[in-house]
Amino acid sequence: MSEVLTDSKHISITLPNGEVRQYPDGSTGLDIAASIGKRLADDAICIKLDGALMDLNIPLHNDGALHIITFDSDEGREVYWHSSSHLMAQAIEELFPESKFGAGPAIENGFYYDISSPHRFTEDDLRKIETRMLEISARKLPINREVLARTDAITYFQENRKDPFKVEILEDSLADQPMVSIYHQGYFSDLCTGPHFSNTSKLKAVKLTGVSGSFWRGDSSREQMQRIYGISFPSEKQLKKHFARLEEAKKRDHRKLGSDLELFLLTPKVGSGLPLWLPNGAILRDELIMFLKDEQKRRGYQPVVTPHIGNIELYKTSGHYPYYSDSQFPPLTFKDELGVEEQFLLKPMNCPHHHQIYLSKPRSYRDLPIRLTEFGTVYRYEQSGELNGLIRVRGFTQDDSHIYCRQDQLIDEICNAIDLTQYVFKTLGFSEVKTRLSLRDPDNQDKYSGNEEQWTQAENDVLEAAKRMDLAYELGLGEASFYGPKIDFIVKDAIGRKWQLGTVQVDYIMPERFDLTYTGSDGQKHRPVVIHRAPFGSLERFIGILIENFAGNFPVWLSPIQGIVLPINESLNDYAKEVQHALKAANLRVDIDFRAEKIGKKIRDAEVKKIPYMFVIGEKEKSSQMVSVRRHKEGDKGVSSLDDIIQKITQEISEKRL
Amino acid sequence: MSEVLTDSKHISITLPNGEVRQYPDGSTGLDIAASIGKRLADDAICIKLDGALMDLNIPLHNDGALHIITFDSDEGREVYWHSSSHLMAQAIEELFPESKFGAGPAIENGFYYDISSPHRFTEDDLRKIETRMLEISARKLPINREVLARTDAITYFQENRKDPFKVEILEDSLADQPMVSIYHQGYFSDLCTGPHFSNTSKLKAVKLTGVSGSFWRGDSSREQMQRIYGISFPSEKQLKKHFARLEEAKKRDHRKLGSDLELFLLTPKVGSGLPLWLPNGAILRDELIMFLKDEQKRRGYQPVVTPHIGNIELYKTSGHYPYYSDSQFPPLTFKDELGVEEQFLLKPMNCPHHHQIYLSKPRSYRDLPIRLTEFGTVYRYEQSGELNGLIRVRGFTQDDSHIYCRQDQLIDEICNAIDLTQYVFKTLGFSEVKTRLSLRDPDNQDKYSGNEEQWTQAENDVLEAAKRMDLAYELGLGEASFYGPKIDFIVKDAIGRKWQLGTVQVDYIMPERFDLTYTGSDGQKHRPVVIHRAPFGSLERFIGILIENFAGNFPVWLSPIQGIVLPINESLNDYAKEVQHALKAANLRVDIDFRAEKIGKKIRDAEVKKIPYMFVIGEKEKSSQMVSVRRHKEGDKGVSSLDDIIQKITQEISEKRL
Repeated sequence: MSEVLTDSKHISITLPNGEVRQYPDGSTGLDIAASIGKRLADDAICIKLDGALMDLNIPLHNDGALHIITFDSDEGREVYWHSSSHLMAQAIEELFPESKFGAGPAIENGFYYDISSPHRFTEDDLRKIETRMLEISARKLPINREVLARTDAITYFQENRKDPFKVEILEDSLADQPMVSIYHQGYFSDLCTGPHFSNTSKLKAVKLTGVSGSFWRGDSSREQMQRIYGISFPSEKQLKKHFARLEEAKKRDHRKLGSDLELFLLTPKVGSGLPLWLPNGAILRDELIMFLKDEQKRRGYQPVVTPHIGNIELYKTSGHYPYYSDSQFPPLTFKDELGVEEQFLLKPMNCPHHHQIYLSKPRSYRDLPIRLTEFGTVYRYEQSGELNGLIRVRGFTQDDSHIYCRQDQLIDEICNAIDLTQYVFKTLGFSEVKTRLSLRDPDNQDKYSGNEEQWTQAENDVLEAAKRMDLAYELGLGEASFYGPKIDFIVKDAIGRKWQLGTVQVDYIMPERFDLTYTGSDGQKHRPVVIHRAPFGSLERFIGILIENFAGNFPVWLSPIQGIVLPINESLNDYAKEVQHALKAANLRVDIDFRAEKIGKKIRDAEVKKIPYMFVIGEKEKSSQMVSVRRHKEGDKGVSSLDDIIQKITQEISEKRL
Repeated sequence: MSEVLTDSKHISITLPNGEVRQYPDGSTGLDIAASIGKRLADDAICIKLDGALMDLNIPLHNDGALHIITFDSDEGREVYWHSSSHLMAQAIEELFPESKFGAGPAIENGFYYDISSPHRFTEDDLRKIETRMLEISARKLPINREVLARTDAITYFQENRKDPFKVEILEDSLADQPMVSIYHQGYFSDLCTGPHFSNTSKLKAVKLTGVSGSFWRGDSSREQMQRIYGISFPSEKQLKKHFARLEEAKKRDHRKLGSDLELFLLTPKVGSGLPLWLPNGAILRDELIMFLKDEQKRRGYQPVVTPHIGNIELYKTSGHYPYYSDSQFPPLTFKDELGVEEQFLLKPMNCPHHHQIYLSKPRSYRDLPIRLTEFGTVYRYEQSGELNGLIRVRGFTQDDSHIYCRQDQLIDEICNAIDLTQYVFKTLGFSEVKTRLSLRDPDNQDKYSGNEEQWTQAENDVLEAAKRMDLAYELGLGEASFYGPKIDFIVKDAIGRKWQLGTVQVDYIMPERFDLTYTGSDGQKHRPVVIHRAPFGSLERFIGILIENFAGNFPVWLSPIQGIVLPINESLNDYAKEVQHALKAANLRVDIDFRAEKIGKKIRDAEVKKIPYMFVIGEKEKSSQMVSVRRHKEGDKGVSSLDDIIQKITQEISEKRL
């Protein structure tokens, strides 16, 4: 604020569309947003200037490339929720003046603040705090950043705010910082690097979701604190939508459905993150595998099967060990009877095994492409806090293929892999699929293996394939893997959540490291290119997402139990068995409910089990050799002969109807 | 020989058929054999009296149960070959008097002797030694056992035989034996516990198979010796048959065929004993799995899938760890991010995982039997010297099922498991199947878990099931597993070798250890019985045996490549592709040989690859839209329309014709 502004000076701002505009020196992000449009100024939360996030109300004196950040981006939400945590602290301070504040960050969905207070916060208190936060919003307080010497900040927090926690932070974590920043809003101030939105009125809707215990600096020997969680939005409508989606997601939670529908089991007796597939889940899993196996067979893939451990040298050759050892189980070390020590790794990926198969005989240019495929179970060590149902596990099965091809075949093979992936997603009902092309970070090329020429070729080939396949993609600069560029597929599920599924990766590096060759038409040795691809990615994760996407109402071909025969009384059990027998002979998975329950109860229970077809058997059905058909969630479908209904369901299955 | 014989004394000898005969005190095993029949006396090698093997020429003074041991038994062969090694030593001593002898045991197929000699033995020497052995046989030397004090034996070997090796043995290994035995034949004598056949004339045919280096007492710091291997038979005919079978077995060696037919790969790069299935082998493996999966589905089995590692506590509960830790890979030990140490084992068996699935919900008597099934890959540590192709590996896939049933269902379930096993063997062409019922060792019951009542019940149920299934079985007393009795299936392959395949095991112990229960009709908790069963046993081993049994000429349904189209020149390539397309559309696995080779060469190569069907395409076939069909090893089958040959082959496949 103490800068001298002169009318004569201007700064050049490059907007995201490439347009360059001139602004008076000292213009703020908000000024620039307003110059573009009122709506953008209203939505603006902060700016990003040459890659650095900054407050909206800071005067700018330098040229640069500028993005206006809104709530629609990850960065915008993080700043919004971080600012909301300050508002919450201010509200708590006003309501419970004896409170002192620890850490208050944004998290994946919302924010929290750790509070030291003699008061024990209740649900009622949370409602009061929410109300007060909206009052503070209504006060439209400006939020200002002050930069000062760390020593002055210590004095300020000791004397003005009497806040021992911030003093401690200033004295140890920040000890090497000469200058620090404080954010002020009304009478409330907080030590913070920011940025923040620049007026409390940005907060429009808030919900505090709970209180839990925590310790100052996560150290159980230090002071116990209360952590209040919340989430906030720029509109009440967005908040409502969020909680409606949470409610829907809860109903679809694959961990709950996985247990209710007896699909899988996670138990510490076997090990965290190591799912066991119960019969229903094993059937579903097997259907998915057979579907992809058949499709791959048609597309010229060759199956292989490899062990779940491998000599550690394989992973040293590939470069995965020791660089990725954080995400690997420890090596198995032992001496054989001759005293020779060997080390094995639970395989974290299938590639080195497949490369050994490629190497098992000489290959000619005529043999390529060779498409090896395996449903290979791999093991990776994930921190136990990171584990989540089937979504994040320690053992999972990849639908893994490695395609070894000549350079002149590469684009075709990438296109084929994209086509297969799209076919898989379409068959499984993911109609909205986005693509992300991950290339090198142009500013940090050292972290990639291989030479410039290979990378340029690989990136061009991926871009060319994307063009040929007419992919609408976004670019992920710096998101390539260390051995090559990749294409990731992101699907939107039935309730609008996005999931990264499926990948196609180009690799010029492993062929070098494993010395993979083929004899060309010139009689010389050449290197093949390798494509790594997996449409499902991890079967476990994919099925977790499928469960949530379908809310357990699987298409008939995937349903572990496709139908259930419901005799209305015991005298009909024999006919029920006949019906089941006929349906089973047609290769349908059909149960019978023999319980001495009323038919209404049997139907309700079958609905809960989400069984697609119910065959109700009464005297009338028996005497006419028919069944009364009910469809899950749709109800009565009338009376049918066995032949007709078998034909209908078989057709539905063979078409993989959704 | 110094015993006093009195005519008045007799001994009672019980023969294997239960008959009890009286013989004069001091009768020898040979006397008894002669009293039964001249042929038996000729064939007799030694006797077994109350379980103890003895020479034929030892006078007997006590009653007992007696077996005459011939070459047809494992014990007979071992004594025969051990005696042959003595004959070889005598022959070597006569030909190369400076030789000294180390150890000379019988081995699985034949015998060897370790010799210390300044002479370097050549192939020619082996022929000379064989001739001399037959000469010693012709001398008809009696072989006599002398029992003497160890100290006297030391003097004897020092002074008479000047044999430092036997003296060393007498002075250390046998230091706690007051008496030892020496066997004499002519001028040759050897320190030996015996027994031996009683006349050198028993040796009728011998072949010395090779020489290798060894060390005295296997210690590389001790004297280097030459180990001469040989095998011998009671007739020239048996010797010829043995070597003919070896020759045939060599042609069928699954390691050679596995490589020639590109079925699997064993490479130290991945690890010893860890096979990788190449595309052809993966197809064969998958066909076997699908065959059994389908059959099991029909028989009410439910698939499950479980991880390849498990918390070590599972194996402590089962009792497999640490007691079987010799045959397990070492545990994986690590700390999670909270510092909690966990230990996992590469699963050596699937049972504990399946028990966790059983435990995942309450079970009622109405739910039983529950038949869980998994193609579960397990890992066991075998010494590298024990590894053998696919037959003995470190990682293998069991067709493993656990059947949880009520006591009143047990016999039925054992019968079902036997029936399935028999069906599997029959389908795969093993027509000669023997069964072995392994029960407890009645004299050593301490080594089994569980109580007397359970074992008696389990053994009775197994015997009852065997009776119901009309099994011709032999009993294996003392061969039960520690948790229960079992039924093993032994098949004879195409060249008469026997292989143990498939097992059905009853288990009352694991239900206790894992606290498996179900609620009975009485509302009380009960223990189910568990049946472990695996018709293939290990898929790897089974396929190894299948390869040898079929000599790689698999039935069409199992053949990785079922047919190959052979265009006689390049102008026919397009029609060849049409033919392949039609055959592939009928789900047949069909290649094309596009090479610019003569048709004779293409046919010969297809024969070498053991491809069941060849479709020869010439101008005539193209113009008539036909194919000339050739069958592997059978030759020309005439011209056929595509529809006809597809129908024929499809039929052959669906019938799984052998």
